[in-house]
Amino acid sequence: MLMLTLTASSSSAAVFPLSSYFSISRSSSSSLNLANLSRSSKPTYPSAVSLKVLASSSPMIEKETPETQRPKTFLRETDDNHSQNSNSNSNSVRARFEKMIREVQDSVCSSIEAVDQGGKFNEDVWSRPGGGGGISRVLQDGAVWEKAGVNVSVVYGVMPPEAYRAANPLQNGNTMPGPVPFFAAGISSVLHPKNPFAPTLHFNYRYFETDAPKDAPGAPRQWWFGGGTDFTPAYIFEEDVMHFHSIQKRACDKFDASFYPRFKKWCDDYFYIKHRGERRGLGGIFFDDLNDYDQEMLLSFATECANTVIPAYIPIIEKRKDMPFTDRHKAWQQLRRGRYVEFNLVYDRGTTFGLKTGGRIESILVSLPLTARWEYDHQPEEGSEEWKLLDACINPKEWI
Amino acid sequence: MLMLTLTASSSSAAVFPLSSYFSISRSSSSSLNLANLSRSSKPTYPSAVSLKVLASSSPMIEKETPETQRPKTFLRETDDNHSQNSNSNSNSVRARFEKMIREVQDSVCSSIEAVDQGGKFNEDVWSRPGGGGGISRVLQDGAVWEKAGVNVSVVYGVMPPEAYRAANPLQNGNTMPGPVPFFAAGISSVLHPKNPFAPTLHFNYRYFETDAPKDAPGAPRQWWFGGGTDFTPAYIFEEDVMHFHSIQKRACDKFDASFYPRFKKWCDDYFYIKHRGERRGLGGIFFDDLNDYDQEMLLSFATECANTVIPAYIPIIEKRKDMPFTDRHKAWQQLRRGRYVEFNLVYDRGTTFGLKTGGRIESILVSLPLTARWEYDHQPEEGSEEWKLLDACINPKEWI
Repeated sequence: MLMLTLTASSSSAAVFPLSSYFSISRSSSSSLNLANLSRSSKPTYPSAVSLKVLASSSPMIEKETPETQRPKTFLRETDDNHSQNSNSNSNSVRARFEKMIREVQDSVCSSIEAVDQGGKFNEDVWSRPGGGGGISRVLQDGAVWEKAGVNVSVVYGVMPPEAYRAANPLQNGNTMPGPVPFFAAGISSVLHPKNPFAPTLHFNYRYFETDAPKDAPGAPRQWWFGGGTDFTPAYIFEEDVMHFHSIQKRACDKFDASFYPRFKKWCDDYFYIKHRGERRGLGGIFFDDLNDYDQEMLLSFATECANTVIPAYIPIIEKRKDMPFTDRHKAWQQLRRGRYVEFNLVYDRGTTFGLKTGGRIESILVSLPLTARWEYDHQPEEGSEEWKLLDACINPKEWI
Repeated sequence: MLMLTLTASSSSAAVFPLSSYFSISRSSSSSLNLANLSRSSKPTYPSAVSLKVLASSSPMIEKETPETQRPKTFLRETDDNHSQNSNSNSNSVRARFEKMIREVQDSVCSSIEAVDQGGKFNEDVWSRPGGGGGISRVLQDGAVWEKAGVNVSVVYGVMPPEAYRAANPLQNGNTMPGPVPFFAAGISSVLHPKNPFAPTLHFNYRYFETDAPKDAPGAPRQWWFGGGTDFTPAYIFEEDVMHFHSIQKRACDKFDASFYPRFKKWCDDYFYIKHRGERRGLGGIFFDDLNDYDQEMLLSFATECANTVIPAYIPIIEKRKDMPFTDRHKAWQQLRRGRYVEFNLVYDRGTTFGLKTGGRIESILVSLPLTARWEYDHQPEEGSEEWKLLDACINPKEWI
């Protein structure tokens, strides 16, 4: 049985065996992501590892401890980076990534509250004895959004040596290395508005690092970035879709001309509801395993992407939030919300892994809409606005 | 790669490889069932087979053909049983089981329409070139039920010889037998009422037979029965729960005193939403792999169970359908509907298998409620009516 220990520290180490059926395949079209990671510890695996884990015992996860205050950092004290005073490695990628996602959480939540003018985010802060923690913020039943969750989390974990070996066959093949400590941090958010003309937004940016196995100190450390921003309207306003994709493209183009086309397609491929033959929405960008560029460049890229969330999304919401709509529009939005539920519960790796390893369920499922609907054999009339949306979900388009 | 061919006949044989992640484990606490099988062909496996299938290519399924009329039987003409005129084997278990489930479909639909006094079932009839077919009936947005599906189906399939061999090591271990033809028939139904005091009902009865492998005619034929009836209220009326369970027990007791306690527990175990630590509802009975009794006795037992659906359910609906309720009651019902969605999309083997093998999606997902709701971290007040329901889902009770 393969085990993941949640923390490398000794006595507080909680063990959570991987559940049956769980399989991690680091293919280019899908990813284990940190979406909805808050309070559930969702270990991720190093780049290029293809690992199938079939174990049979029940999952367990280290229990989180509620905190009354946000700490300055969730990094471990034993990390060189923990103290802003020591100034030693406070510029480490770990530390700067945590700082970035916490700033993005603040700015996105402020923008949402400013536009909503009614709902307020409730915050839950938590930590784990072995290190790491997170901040969950949820706004529910606001004036503009029916449910908006913005979570950050920092996870210290230990992954099975088999996973590390698969990526890095050691010189001495006969020596089984010890468990490999890893670090993962991410921001994850889903924003579901009320008005059927206002789109749902999802974004998620994450950074991952492994240490060398303790008894193989010479083995290479690994790291990578993942994430994306995608949006899911119930009705197409071409100017909105073009605005959203243009901003994604502009962020990508600052770094590499190949990024937007590549990550746009990756997004269309990942958010695919196979049993429907439809994408969940109208895409955006998605990437994972990104480590074949300069690390500083990728940190800047992830930061740029996370910072485009507000300019990409809020102007669309401002335009659509008060548009008059009928019961028919609302019912169609609800049907599309049903598709959102289908994707998240059946396909999303972060969600399905979280469910199976016993993470904090409310944080994992905060991505689900407040309300959803399933009609038997609903077929939009050809040429209708509903049909146009469905067609764009079946046949992804180039919007810009 | 393991393959299932949908039909044993030659030219029209469609092939659908099992999808990745699909695993059949015939343990006592769960089952691959024929729920929502209509139009999706959901092969089942012989009793006592423990089979893990990990294949990687995309699924495919033989396309169904719509029919304008219900045929007298979906049994193959090459079956001895097909013709009522020949009178040869029209009393076969296959034939009698098909007759039974079609009669139950008629009687349940009639009862539902009579109580609803508004909605009418829409019917879809279909067949497959290689044999088999089904009748889907869905009533949507009625006066009493928001969604009610009652489906029957008959499937001819061929299962991989490996599955058969696992159950029956042949005398000559070196001879790989050919594919093993099987027959499966079932009725499957989910009834979601509008009034939050009126419970959802699910029932499903199925019969399975294998032939001997074609090149090993002496090998034993296998058969078994499976099914159950369970109900899912949002609020507990003890008299309703006792009425429902009493009728299940009475049906069981006619056959074997051990059935009710055994199948009641099996039901509590099967409809378990692991990530919530809750059952989907208040249970009923559930069984699978049942072949260690006389076949005629089990046919009678399945028939008895299917015939208790109306007396077990309709009187409860009559009492609850017009009860006044508040928004709070409705919201709680909707949250429980969310749990129904979680169970069906994440755990129900019939549904998850159907989604992955490319069955007719609308028939598979007709079990989902018309509407559902997810609130962040909803906690019913201790001692409230909502809390009592939740407590009974967490800690299954003996009701009679």
